[in-house]
Amino acid sequence: MARVGFVGLGIMGAPMCANVLAKGHDVTVYNRSREKMAPLIAKGAEGASSVEELVRQSEIVITMLSDPTAVWEVIAETAGVLSSLGPGKTYIDMSTVSPESSREIAVRVHKTGADFLEAPVLGSRKPATEGNLIILAGGNPDVAKRMEPLLLTMGSKVVYVGEVGLAAHMKLIINQMMGTLLCVFSEAALTGMAAGIPAEKILDVIESSVVGCQAIRIKGKDMLGERAFAVHFPLKHALKDMRLAVLAGDAQGIPTPVTAAAYQLFSIAKERGYAEHDSSAVLRALTDK
Amino acid sequence: MARVGFVGLGIMGAPMCANVLAKGHDVTVYNRSREKMAPLIAKGAEGASSVEELVRQSEIVITMLSDPTAVWEVIAETAGVLSSLGPGKTYIDMSTVSPESSREIAVRVHKTGADFLEAPVLGSRKPATEGNLIILAGGNPDVAKRMEPLLLTMGSKVVYVGEVGLAAHMKLIINQMMGTLLCVFSEAALTGMAAGIPAEKILDVIESSVVGCQAIRIKGKDMLGERAFAVHFPLKHALKDMRLAVLAGDAQGIPTPVTAAAYQLFSIAKERGYAEHDSSAVLRALTDK
Amino acid sequence: MARVGFVGLGIMGAPMCANVLAKGHDVTVYNRSREKMAPLIAKGAEGASSVEELVRQSEIVITMLSDPTAVWEVIAETAGVLSSLGPGKTYIDMSTVSPESSREIAVRVHKTGADFLEAPVLGSRKPATEGNLIILAGGNPDVAKRMEPLLLTMGSKVVYVGEVGLAAHMKLIINQMMGTLLCVFSEAALTGMAAGIPAEKILDVIESSVVGCQAIRIKGKDMLGERAFAVHFPLKHALKDMRLAVLAGDAQGIPTPVTAAAYQLFSIAKERGYAEHDSSAVLRALTDK
Amino acid sequence: MARVGFVGLGIMGAPMCANVLAKGHDVTVYNRSREKMAPLIAKGAEGASSVEELVRQSEIVITMLSDPTAVWEVIAETAGVLSSLGPGKTYIDMSTVSPESSREIAVRVHKTGADFLEAPVLGSRKPATEGNLIILAGGNPDVAKRMEPLLLTMGSKVVYVGEVGLAAHMKLIINQMMGTLLCVFSEAALTGMAAGIPAEKILDVIESSVVGCQAIRIKGKDMLGERAFAVHFPLKHALKDMRLAVLAGDAQGIPTPVTAAAYQLFSIAKERGYAEHDSSAVLRALTDK
Repeated sequence: MARVGFVGLGIMGAPMCANVLAKGHDVTVYNRSREKMAPLIAKGAEGASSVEELVRQSEIVITMLSDPTAVWEVIAETAGVLSSLGPGKTYIDMSTVSPESSREIAVRVHKTGADFLEAPVLGSRKPATEGNLIILAGGNPDVAKRMEPLLLTMGSKVVYVGEVGLAAHMKLIINQMMGTLLCVFSEAALTGMAAGIPAEKILDVIESSVVGCQAIRIKGKDMLGERAFAVHFPLKHALKDMRLAVLAGDAQGIPTPVTAAAYQLFSIAKERGYAEHDSSAVLRALTDK
Repeated sequence: MARVGFVGLGIMGAPMCANVLAKGHDVTVYNRSREKMAPLIAKGAEGASSVEELVRQSEIVITMLSDPTAVWEVIAETAGVLSSLGPGKTYIDMSTVSPESSREIAVRVHKTGADFLEAPVLGSRKPATEGNLIILAGGNPDVAKRMEPLLLTMGSKVVYVGEVGLAAHMKLIINQMMGTLLCVFSEAALTGMAAGIPAEKILDVIESSVVGCQAIRIKGKDMLGERAFAVHFPLKHALKDMRLAVLAGDAQGIPTPVTAAAYQLFSIAKERGYAEHDSSAVLRALTDK
Repeated sequence: MARVGFVGLGIMGAPMCANVLAKGHDVTVYNRSREKMAPLIAKGAEGASSVEELVRQSEIVITMLSDPTAVWEVIAETAGVLSSLGPGKTYIDMSTVSPESSREIAVRVHKTGADFLEAPVLGSRKPATEGNLIILAGGNPDVAKRMEPLLLTMGSKVVYVGEVGLAAHMKLIINQMMGTLLCVFSEAALTGMAAGIPAEKILDVIESSVVGCQAIRIKGKDMLGERAFAVHFPLKHALKDMRLAVLAGDAQGIPTPVTAAAYQLFSIAKERGYAEHDSSAVLRALTDK
Repeated sequence: MARVGFVGLGIMGAPMCANVLAKGHDVTVYNRSREKMAPLIAKGAEGASSVEELVRQSEIVITMLSDPTAVWEVIAETAGVLSSLGPGKTYIDMSTVSPESSREIAVRVHKTGADFLEAPVLGSRKPATEGNLIILAGGNPDVAKRMEPLLLTMGSKVVYVGEVGLAAHMKLIINQMMGTLLCVFSEAALTGMAAGIPAEKILDVIESSVVGCQAIRIKGKDMLGERAFAVHFPLKHALKDMRLAVLAGDAQGIPTPVTAAAYQLFSIAKERGYAEHDSSAVLRALTDK
């Protein structure tokens, strides 16, 4: 059993950390809003008073933060992760960041002599709680292999994607497909409904078809019905990922005209005031009724 | 058990007809290329020498033809379906045609006093053979109800979508989502591969994700690998459906910018010479390597 | 001097007819709203009590109507243009219709034994008044040559484009370029203004540049300033032309992805409530501020 | 008359420098390929052996380089422009760089105590030779005013756009409109030609229309005819500007769906092998015939 430090106890981080703890690891936790540490301390974790302290007493440090800015703050600020990392320690970033960011982090971690793994996850709160996340690993394959048992306390499957940056890229591919799918589903379903097909028939037939998938299963009903767009993944983040996907294509010489059209539909939805809603609110770019 | 006439014994029609026969119905068959009738006659069907004869001796007439032109020929030409239909008979068109075509057919069938049902299917040869098609029904709900047991000899599920035209529209929605999904998958996966992610990792992670679906499961491996693009659904037909989807949106006042971008990507693939390949050859619009 | 019948005395038709009259032709006029005939009768035209009467007493019949529906009504209804046309007469349609419509009209006119010319115009009220329109001619080249002097009473230049349908197509090309230009101008100028460049600088530099053109000169100031979008060409008609342009490309096997994106931007502007505003209100698809 | 140092004697720089010289200024020149200095020395310029030497003996330093990388090399490398600039000197960069690059340059120039002006130009070799360029000025308005007489030796008009970065942004707007115009012109004209309209008619009518502009006048004939695509502005640079235009819109919260579609068409043309051809080779994304 390893000494694990876990930073970032939000919607995803808290249940992930609880799963690590439940498998008997020796866990130290830290969160900027200290009150989020209490439930995990109640379950047996130790609370650290600073990131530095957490890193000092851990062999493996995990961060699960909401966005790249938060990651950089936790890592690089005075008394951050980098200041106490060193040979013999391993740092795993499970946040979703761009491939470029991840590569930069790797360079700086390696300078301390520590090992680094990027390990973004697929799945939201429910699979996080059930330990059923899909975990994408990028970095040195030996480090990935060594960390796999720990990662499997949080997920049902670890896919080693390749060198640092490629796991982040793989996550981008999923978000790119997801974003575009939400767009075409909105276009197709709104048209069908306007032509007279009931929403529940549309959802039922899609579910039975070759394009049936969990994304529509989770978000489709709200999109065609209430349109509450309760936030699982904010539209402004989806917009950012669509931009990154287009730029990734450009960098590799691969045209991405359909992704670019979807990217722009997210931009129109944002301009209409839906940046803070769920990404499924991209439907609002097509109708405000 | 009903007296059923079945016209169109191609890749889909032959196994569908065999399933009707297997359930004990009294089946008469007709196909323009007469040699395709033999296997069904061997299984107990009666062969008709013309469409007219088939219609005369059937209570229920089913057509399963490859495209709208073929449907119109079989229906409307001298000695076609329309010439012998009349009160007490029911005509079910299971071919994929546009909502407009289907509505026109309905008007002409109803003039003869016969009942009409549009019943396009989801699924290809395999589910057709296994009787596992999803069947979309459009038309009078009583007729649909009455025909359901017969339809269930060919499929595992019948979804009554609504009035005539709406089942055809529902099928268009699936094809629109499918076409767009093939585009964004091509864009995303080619970029990922160019960045260094192995094709099998991409397919594995997509399969495990919320956008995992049968469409990618069936076509993905060939698209990222051999690129044989063996025809299940020709690209030129996918292009036509994308056009119809954009026009359907326009007619209903729903913008469809992402579908339109996908439509144009199919157009570029066609211009590059892939009209007769499988729709998944839309990938060729992005690279000819 | 010819005996000319002129049907359609709207914003464009009235000054065009006045110019024909001013050159000494013997002109009979007809307009559904009779009060619009008075000013031309005051200038020496004769008023007809019906289209039929007008056609009977004219060698050359000109129609200048607002849209294809109006054209078909005037031509094909009982006591319409077709009912009195015959050998020795020439019918010139100067309205803007689709190439397909124009070809259909030609077929029906030719059946009467009369000659037909399509002659859509480039230019709005001002060049119409000054006799400075650009006139696109499509049809039999001999007929076009014979009609050129009459056409030059209304325009400064006649371009013989080719057979019937091609002049209509040529006009579509201009509208397609115009529509797309309004879109990219909106995108570029709104971004520039948001970044801090004053609107008048943007207009000044564009005017001095290789993309400087009359379209921006006429509409640009309102688009970046007051945003009254006073109707010269309604957005709903621009949307229709963008659709026709995309379909024309598809029919010829030429992809039109940029036109398709512009088409969809017009669709979004329409959905936002700008169908009846000027086509330049496409800017409203990008911002409602 | 000022002591002017001119770095970059390429297709644009050489005639621009000659015009400064012709108005009686005391000019020192430098070019990496030294042989390009000879013609200007023959006309009375002095040759410098290094950028540093040139900067030391000049009050005003002008650079006119082919791309941002070249600019950064000349400015920042050891013994570059920055190393010898100081109070009392003014540095004018007339190259085309991104707004961000220009702002970074300004910051570093201002640290030396020197003044900075960005002054990208509109126009190609011919107006450069005739001193008819349009010059866009960005920076301190007093500096711009003070430099205007010098700039007018090279151009017919100086437009002060605003603070540093805005002149670069204004140039981007022109390139964005130009790029999109080339796309829609390709789409429209290829369709028209396929339908049977002769290329010269298309060019003639566009020229007479509200969308007639110098861009089509210069490039249209080659695009519809020979398709030599002789390089005035390489496609790969146009692609880069389209990307910057989309990102600029995104940064300002303005959707740019039509620019994005054009951006992707340039990407497809590049993938087809036209990166080094003129930007008008974007037509090749639509047809390789």
